[in-house]
Amino acid sequence: MEILKFRTTEGEQAVGITKILEKIVAQSKISEGILVVYCPHTTAAIAINEGTDETFVLDLFSFLEAQTSKIPLTHPSNPKAHLKAAVIGNSKSIPISDGKLALGTWESVFLLDFDGPKERKVHVQIMDKS
Amino acid sequence: MEILKFRTTEGEQAVGITKILEKIVAQSKISEGILVVYCPHTTAAIAINEGTDETFVLDLFSFLEAQTSKIPLTHPSNPKAHLKAAVIGNSKSIPISDGKLALGTWESVFLLDFDGPKERKVHVQIMDKS
Amino acid sequence: MEILKFRTTEGEQAVGITKILEKIVAQSKISEGILVVYCPHTTAAIAINEGTDETFVLDLFSFLEAQTSKIPLTHPSNPKAHLKAAVIGNSKSIPISDGKLALGTWESVFLLDFDGPKERKVHVQIMDKS
Repeated sequence: MEILKFRTTEGEQAVGITKILEKIVAQSKISEGILVVYCPHTTAAIAINEGTDETFVLDLFSFLEAQTSKIPLTHPSNPKAHLKAAVIGNSKSIPISDGKLALGTWESVFLLDFDGPKERKVHVQIMDKS
Repeated sequence: MEILKFRTTEGEQAVGITKILEKIVAQSKISEGILVVYCPHTTAAIAINEGTDETFVLDLFSFLEAQTSKIPLTHPSNPKAHLKAAVIGNSKSIPISDGKLALGTWESVFLLDFDGPKERKVHVQIMDKS
Repeated sequence: MEILKFRTTEGEQAVGITKILEKIVAQSKISEGILVVYCPHTTAAIAINEGTDETFVLDLFSFLEAQTSKIPLTHPSNPKAHLKAAVIGNSKSIPISDGKLALGTWESVFLLDFDGPKERKVHVQIMDKS
């Protein structure tokens, strides 16, 4: 398993990790299989969506902030960040085919930090089909 | 990896894909393993829930529309569809056991198109445990 | 595939299953791989987040109840529970590394029942990398 490490610098931040994942797949020499990308934090998540410009990420942060700001919460440390992470989820599995990550044309993979700035890790496990 | 292709005909549409996935598992002759079902689009998602009648799907579309209609968004092309896809997620892993997809009694697998009508693909990767 | 069985006793309840999953991994003797934890019910889900005390779980139940209470729904049997399950999701994949489930320091795995009390199952499939 590979452990990626990042230092986020803002309160909420999306870190694009598509190219790192594609490099891991290329180096693995696996032709067919899956890649599991997993975030081991309770206030961060993994999202897969458009990364052409920043509008998706900005919309997502605005949306989740509005959603989680409407009721009283009890968690002592950034309760909204925990709910945002739970809604988006911390684990995604992506097929590998023909030696490449089988992402769509417009898809990027993001580590989303909802409680930065912090040291963050991402766990990456690749499974070979053959 | 199998690539399924669909043409949706409505603005929002749920396409039931359970039987196609069950057929792929049967043809694979895999007894124990997992199936990864992955949607490579930024305005569509994969959901697993009740498919006995249309009420769940109608409720889900109403719910997500109401959720995403409350704040101004910036994405130039159907920003609500991107958020709906991010909340539901585009990747699900389902166990295979005794040669069958280990779904629950009431579960169906859906491709959810939030920005139709469009040509849509679903990537399916099966992994053998043995 | 292992099938875990639980009887929930409340209308909404979080059942911590981290220790059971860790035991399954230890007994499997698998060093590197993944564990897929899958809930085969349409009104229950799998979440991974903080389990140190009950505040995250209480916040999540309050949040999802508020979210799903704002519009009329049509499903004849607990429509809110189906939406809550769809938002959180019923399938998570967790890497296994060095013979252990590669969870973060603060992470716990929960079966979330949104429509209890009921008999509930969780499907667990482990895949070996080697």
